[in-house]
Amino acid sequence: MRLVVIGGDAAGATAASTVKRTHPDWDVVMFEKGAWTSYSACGFPYALGGLVTPWEKLLARSPEEHRKRGIDVRSETEVTAIDINARRVGYRDHKTGKEGEEPFDRLVYATGAGEARPPIPGLEHGHFVQTPSQAKRLGEVLDHAQHAVVVGGGYIGLEMAESLRRRNIACVLIDSAPQVMLTLDSDMAKLVQEALVGIGVHVLLEHSLGSIERDGDRFRVTTPNEIVDTDVVVLAMGSKPRSALAREAGLALGDTGAVKVDHGMQTPMEGIYAAGDCAEVWHLVKERWVNIHLGTVANKTGRVAGINVAGGSARFPGAIGTAVSKICQYEVARTGITEREAKALGRDVVVATIESMTRTHYYPGAGPITVKLVADAVTNKIVGGQIVGTEGAAKRIDVIATAITTGLTAGELIDLDLSYAPPYSPVWDPVQIAARQLPGG
Amino acid sequence: MRLVVIGGDAAGATAASTVKRTHPDWDVVMFEKGAWTSYSACGFPYALGGLVTPWEKLLARSPEEHRKRGIDVRSETEVTAIDINARRVGYRDHKTGKEGEEPFDRLVYATGAGEARPPIPGLEHGHFVQTPSQAKRLGEVLDHAQHAVVVGGGYIGLEMAESLRRRNIACVLIDSAPQVMLTLDSDMAKLVQEALVGIGVHVLLEHSLGSIERDGDRFRVTTPNEIVDTDVVVLAMGSKPRSALAREAGLALGDTGAVKVDHGMQTPMEGIYAAGDCAEVWHLVKERWVNIHLGTVANKTGRVAGINVAGGSARFPGAIGTAVSKICQYEVARTGITEREAKALGRDVVVATIESMTRTHYYPGAGPITVKLVADAVTNKIVGGQIVGTEGAAKRIDVIATAITTGLTAGELIDLDLSYAPPYSPVWDPVQIAARQLPGG
Repeated sequence: MRLVVIGGDAAGATAASTVKRTHPDWDVVMFEKGAWTSYSACGFPYALGGLVTPWEKLLARSPEEHRKRGIDVRSETEVTAIDINARRVGYRDHKTGKEGEEPFDRLVYATGAGEARPPIPGLEHGHFVQTPSQAKRLGEVLDHAQHAVVVGGGYIGLEMAESLRRRNIACVLIDSAPQVMLTLDSDMAKLVQEALVGIGVHVLLEHSLGSIERDGDRFRVTTPNEIVDTDVVVLAMGSKPRSALAREAGLALGDTGAVKVDHGMQTPMEGIYAAGDCAEVWHLVKERWVNIHLGTVANKTGRVAGINVAGGSARFPGAIGTAVSKICQYEVARTGITEREAKALGRDVVVATIESMTRTHYYPGAGPITVKLVADAVTNKIVGGQIVGTEGAAKRIDVIATAITTGLTAGELIDLDLSYAPPYSPVWDPVQIAARQLPGG
Repeated sequence: MRLVVIGGDAAGATAASTVKRTHPDWDVVMFEKGAWTSYSACGFPYALGGLVTPWEKLLARSPEEHRKRGIDVRSETEVTAIDINARRVGYRDHKTGKEGEEPFDRLVYATGAGEARPPIPGLEHGHFVQTPSQAKRLGEVLDHAQHAVVVGGGYIGLEMAESLRRRNIACVLIDSAPQVMLTLDSDMAKLVQEALVGIGVHVLLEHSLGSIERDGDRFRVTTPNEIVDTDVVVLAMGSKPRSALAREAGLALGDTGAVKVDHGMQTPMEGIYAAGDCAEVWHLVKERWVNIHLGTVANKTGRVAGINVAGGSARFPGAIGTAVSKICQYEVARTGITEREAKALGRDVVVATIESMTRTHYYPGAGPITVKLVADAVTNKIVGGQIVGTEGAAKRIDVIATAITTGLTAGELIDLDLSYAPPYSPVWDPVQIAARQLPGG
């Protein structure tokens, strides 16, 4: 049996490893367009900020390590076509320029996501931070920069802005939205924005990028309301699934633009799977297929694809968009749906937002934590949560995520036997304090 | 309507406040034997270690603050008898020596737990740390101590030993058990013991306390295998429910020695409630009535009692023994049942123990974390968890507690959409890494 995997990062490498572990005798060929496999793109901002050195630390498993485990890794080799009926892929080796074909019995499509490239004049003057080579090139430029513009107020843009400030580079952040982090409600996003301003980031909201012009060694960034001259432009405007190759091969895409799959990560084509950022997943709260670009989902769906390719029977029930970022002094976490998303979905919800402390009032180091819960107005079931706090937000959001997944009401959340000790929590956990403010709580 | 509450700490004060908030016109009388109400006994080790000063910081709400909210607080006043038929209590005011009686329509019995006092010669030479006055007296003695013996290897004993080391007092810890922290399995307890040894605590296990003798200004502690001369002896040998007064009044006690109640925290006597350390609660995993001495349970059961006294309808479904402590460099957390408890209960379980990191391998400050999961061998449902790690154990145990309460299997735990960012977790949360080692995972 012969498996071909297209993409050697989280989802692809996980699927390949899972299959090889189950069937050491199978041929597993893994194509990776870049030089690195199994790297942590989440670590780019930290490497660029000088917190993580050298860059190679971000590599979880190199091509050589995968090869030692019996996977035939073709790095710097791009799959250019998939012939589903003939069961083969065409590829080009960027190291040698050589083209070739590789047959397969089963295929895992795990091409990930690439940067969104809106049609903006001069976009080529900016730096994307999606791939290791892009990020490393930006790192070299930053060594000579005193001033930067970051375009995009999502979590990657914010992490980048913080990293630039860590290197004492003056930083302007622009975003067309009226708030940073659209994954949060505006009241919670306000806390994050204030933290960024606190470390000296100049935040320009409702400023859409108009153009980037080169001016000698510098660049001029224009928005409808502002002109900013700068040494470097960092583009963090979001990402989109790399699904063109799949579409050309005749695989169906969903409304999200990502590859359609079932809960076993199989496409409608027998033996062809997709996983990771390029594939759709079911959203357990929105109850629709969505496309989420997060390492957690990529690893989970890669594992499920691998188990099923290997002949097992695994099912990925779905995701709920749980995510956390470190932004300045805060852990910023969210799960489920926001109040704004609920309204857009036409769902009747109630919300509670409370301010508490991360430790008992007397324990040294206690900091503020704000918890917002969103609950269904009819059933009282928790459907979303957002936390901004100086510590303990990441794991607290996981309690909310577990409560959402298991269908707990506000009252049931209050009854949970959660831990308490003075260094870690007030005696009522802030999540439960918030639940007490909800109907039925 | 007239409510009498016996005990002014977590459970009693919560019940009193809940009732007064609902019915401002009701008479609420709260008796408290000591001078303080609503204090944090969990904070005593930190105050004794010099981490929290002054002591008054441990006071969440003083008698005066409760009075401002309309509660008739009788501090330093001990209830000496309850006449259930006549609906009145007898009391003695320790400030004035005056005795009296107080009628009630409804009663909340919330006397808490007191120190276990095994019949050991010279026990009176040791210092208990259950009440504010005991702890403050010990604090004065420690100002002149170079050497201490702590008797008891439960979490309070360990926190005390660490606090003594913080003050540079030499410290011997003795316990009759073959491990510290009997709430953990021995493999996990070993990690905690090593941490204590690492800060210079001399740990003597399987050493039961034989006697304490006075020798001038010093004390001689004898065990069957050792004699230790010391300046001060700290007794942390566990606590037992203060239920004698209830028993004398004719209230039924359970097998645990604590007051029998239903899920509404009502005793079999109409209108008589019990809550907190002195009352039994249902254990959701053991499926039996137990007696747990933790602030979380005291607050929750006090709230339920208060709601029901006030005419509402609340139910405390039960606890699962979730607890966390800070011991040296570790967060030490547990929930549900241990492997040892499962065996004692005759339950067929499977376990998985894994070592991971608290952050991604490359993020600065990543530390070790060990997770042990216990699952039912037949249903694969998670029934217990233990975590020892340098950070993130407290809130991770809450995810396991939520999973246990909602009946998740190992496979369902793996599917949970938990958060990930490099500063907070590897991409697979250590809890999920452990679940993957279980059958069905």
